[in-house]
Amino acid sequence: MASEESHMAVTCTAPVNIAVIKYWGKRDEELILPINSSLSVTLHQDQLKTTTTAVISKAFTEDRIWLNGQEEDIGQPRIQACLREIRRLARKRRSGDEKDPLPLSPSYKVHIASVNNFPTAAGLASSAAGYACLAYALAQVYGVESDLSEVARRGSGSACRSLYGGFVEWQMGERTDGKDSIARQVAPESHWPELRVLILVVSAEKKLTGSTVGMQTSVETSALLKFRAEVVVPARMADMIRCVKENNFQGFGQLTMKDSNQFHATCLDTFPPISYLNDTSRRIIHLVHRFNAHYGQTKVAYTFDAGPNAVIFTLDDTVAEFVAAVKHSFPPESNGDKFVKGLPVRPASLSDELKAALGMNPIPGSIKYIIATQVGPGPQILDHPDAHLLGPDGLPKSVA
Amino acid sequence: MASEESHMAVTCTAPVNIAVIKYWGKRDEELILPINSSLSVTLHQDQLKTTTTAVISKAFTEDRIWLNGQEEDIGQPRIQACLREIRRLARKRRSGDEKDPLPLSPSYKVHIASVNNFPTAAGLASSAAGYACLAYALAQVYGVESDLSEVARRGSGSACRSLYGGFVEWQMGERTDGKDSIARQVAPESHWPELRVLILVVSAEKKLTGSTVGMQTSVETSALLKFRAEVVVPARMADMIRCVKENNFQGFGQLTMKDSNQFHATCLDTFPPISYLNDTSRRIIHLVHRFNAHYGQTKVAYTFDAGPNAVIFTLDDTVAEFVAAVKHSFPPESNGDKFVKGLPVRPASLSDELKAALGMNPIPGSIKYIIATQVGPGPQILDHPDAHLLGPDGLPKSVA
Repeated sequence: MASEESHMAVTCTAPVNIAVIKYWGKRDEELILPINSSLSVTLHQDQLKTTTTAVISKAFTEDRIWLNGQEEDIGQPRIQACLREIRRLARKRRSGDEKDPLPLSPSYKVHIASVNNFPTAAGLASSAAGYACLAYALAQVYGVESDLSEVARRGSGSACRSLYGGFVEWQMGERTDGKDSIARQVAPESHWPELRVLILVVSAEKKLTGSTVGMQTSVETSALLKFRAEVVVPARMADMIRCVKENNFQGFGQLTMKDSNQFHATCLDTFPPISYLNDTSRRIIHLVHRFNAHYGQTKVAYTFDAGPNAVIFTLDDTVAEFVAAVKHSFPPESNGDKFVKGLPVRPASLSDELKAALGMNPIPGSIKYIIATQVGPGPQILDHPDAHLLGPDGLPKSVA
Repeated sequence: MASEESHMAVTCTAPVNIAVIKYWGKRDEELILPINSSLSVTLHQDQLKTTTTAVISKAFTEDRIWLNGQEEDIGQPRIQACLREIRRLARKRRSGDEKDPLPLSPSYKVHIASVNNFPTAAGLASSAAGYACLAYALAQVYGVESDLSEVARRGSGSACRSLYGGFVEWQMGERTDGKDSIARQVAPESHWPELRVLILVVSAEKKLTGSTVGMQTSVETSALLKFRAEVVVPARMADMIRCVKENNFQGFGQLTMKDSNQFHATCLDTFPPISYLNDTSRRIIHLVHRFNAHYGQTKVAYTFDAGPNAVIFTLDDTVAEFVAAVKHSFPPESNGDKFVKGLPVRPASLSDELKAALGMNPIPGSIKYIIATQVGPGPQILDHPDAHLLGPDGLPKSVA
C-alpha cells in the first residue's frame, strides 16, 4: 500500500479558449514559440472542459496515459516535452526552496487520464484544454508553483492561454529560449458579464490540413502572413486589449471578425492553399454581416479557427434573436429540440424586416447544433476523491 | 441617302483575357488607374469573343447602344468616358495630322451594337472583351490610330489587356493623369503553341459582390492588399514575364496559382469579407494539387477571377488526362456529350494510381461544363459587310 509520501493523486479541469487575435505560425518549432502575440477568451467549463487526473507513485514503473478511456502512446514528443519540463521545474524547486515541505520526487513515474465533456467530432480545439489541464495537473502532483506557460505551450501553443480565465494574452516574447513567451490574464472572467458565446457546429467533411502542418507551410510560403505577424498584429493586440478593458463590443466584435478573416486569408495565401472555411461558414459570415447591417451596428461577431465551425460573440440581450436568425437561415434537420445546447436560450421571433434583411435561402441541416456558453474561469482542482479518473491502483476506474 | 463621307460602319471582334498576375484595386476611381501592374493571357476568339459594330453618320441625332440585342442606356458613365476619350483623340489627330485623308467628324453621333458568343450566365468576365471591342471599333470609325489603352481602360480596367493577343502586361504607370498606365504585349500568341486553357464553369448561386464595389472595399479595408500591391506584385511581374519568355510552365503555373490565391486572400481580408470561391472551386484547387503531386511536377495550374469558375492552364500533352480527372471527380450530370466545348479533347482513361491519388468523392453536377481553348490574337476587323450587327439605317439587323 502506498504511503502518504509515496503516492499522490490530483484531478483538475481546464477550459477551451477561442482566440480573437489569432496565433498562426511558429518561429521555433521545437519550443513552440509564435511569430506573433495572440489574445483569447476562455470559455466556461460548464459547457466545455477537459478533466485530467494525474497520479504519481513510487510504485509505478513507467509513465502511462489514457485519453478518453483509451491508452495512448506516452512517447509522443509533445507529451514528453511537457513531462520533461514539469520535472525540470520540480527539481529546480526542490533544490532552491528547502523551507517548504518537499514535494514528492520528480523521478516518480506518473499515470495520467484525461477526458473531454464534448465530442471530438464537434471539431472544437481540444488540444488547448487538454495540454493546459495536463500541465496544471502535473504541477499539482509534482509540487510546481511557477508559471506553467512553457509546460502547456510545449504541448500545444495555444494551451498556455487556457491556464487563465477571462481574457488572456499570449505574449510572443523575444528570447530565443522562450522564457518570455508566456500567457497572462488581461481581464478576469467577471469583467464582462454580458458577453455570450455561441458555437455553431457545422456539418463538414474531414479536415484536410492539420494546424501544425498548416502553420508550418504558411510560415514557409505566405508573404502575407509574415507581414501580418510583423506589422498588423502588434497594433491589433493593443487595440483589442483596449476594447476588452473598455467593454467596447463594437470595437471588440469588428476586430475579432477582421482578425479571423485575415488569419483565413493567410491560409489561402499559403502554397498549396489551405481552406478551413466552407460554404456554410461563408453563409454564417454573410448572415452576421446582414444582421449587423440591419441594426446599423455590430451586435454579433464571428471567429473561425482551423475548421468550419463558427464561434459567435454577442451580448446577452441579443442571444435569443440571433439564435432565431440562425434557425431561420439554417433550419435544424432532425434534432429540433436539441439544436441549442448549454445555456438556456429563450425562443424569439424575427420581425419581417429582419427576415427580409437576412434574405437567404434557408439551408436545412448545414448547422448541426449550437452550444451556448459564456466567458469562464481558468483551471480548477476537483477536491472530491470521486472525481479521480484513475483508481488507487493508477488504472482507469472504468477499466478496473 | 448617306454619302461616303457622312457614314462609316466597322465591325470588330475582341478577346477575353485571363489575368495570371491579378489586378485588384484602383488608385484612381475616375481614371481607372490600378494599384499594381497585372499580366494576362489572351484567350482565342474561336471560343470566346465579343463582336461590336460601330456606325457613325451625319444623319444620326443621338448616340445609341445595343448589347446582346437589347438597347441599353448610352448615358452609363463608363460608356460615356470611352466616347469622350475617343472623340478627344479623334480631334487631336484631325488638328495635328493634316496630310492624311481626314477621318469623319468626331462630332458625328454613333450607333453601337455588341454581342458575346458565350452566355453571360457562364460568369466569364465579358466586360474586358466588351470594352476592348468598343474601343477598337470606335477607333476605326473615328480614325484614331494612337494607343487605345486609355479608351478601353476607362470602360473596364482589364479591358486594356484585351487590346493585344498573346501575353499582355498592363503597366500600372506612375502619372496621376494615367498617360503611362498602358497595356503592352509581352509575347505574341504564337510564342507558346503548346499552352492550353480549360474553363471549368461551376454551378453557383448569384455573385454577391461585384468587382467594382469589391475592389473599392478592399482598397479601403485590407492591409494585406496594400502590402501585396506595393511589395509582392512588382517582384511577381518580373518573375512572370521571365517565365512566359522562357516557356517555363513550372514557374508560370506555380506563380499563376499563388497569385490567384493571394488575390482571393486579400478579398477575404476585406471588411466585410468577400468570397468568390465556393466549395466546388476549393475542390478544383485540391484536385489540381493532387494531380501535380502525383506527377511530382506542376503539370496543371488554376486561376480564379471574381467568381467560382476555374481557369486551368496546362500543356497540350496533359489536356486529355486532366479533363478525364475532372470528369472523374465531378461527373457530368446530364450533358455528358456536351460537357466539353471548344477545342476537341480526346477521351483518356485514368490509371488506378492516379485515381487513388486524386482520392475524392465524386460530386456530380458541380461543374456544368468545360470550355477548351488556347492563347489567341487581339482584336480583329471583320471585312465582310454581312458581319455588321447594324443595318444601313443604324438599327440592329435582327430588329429591322
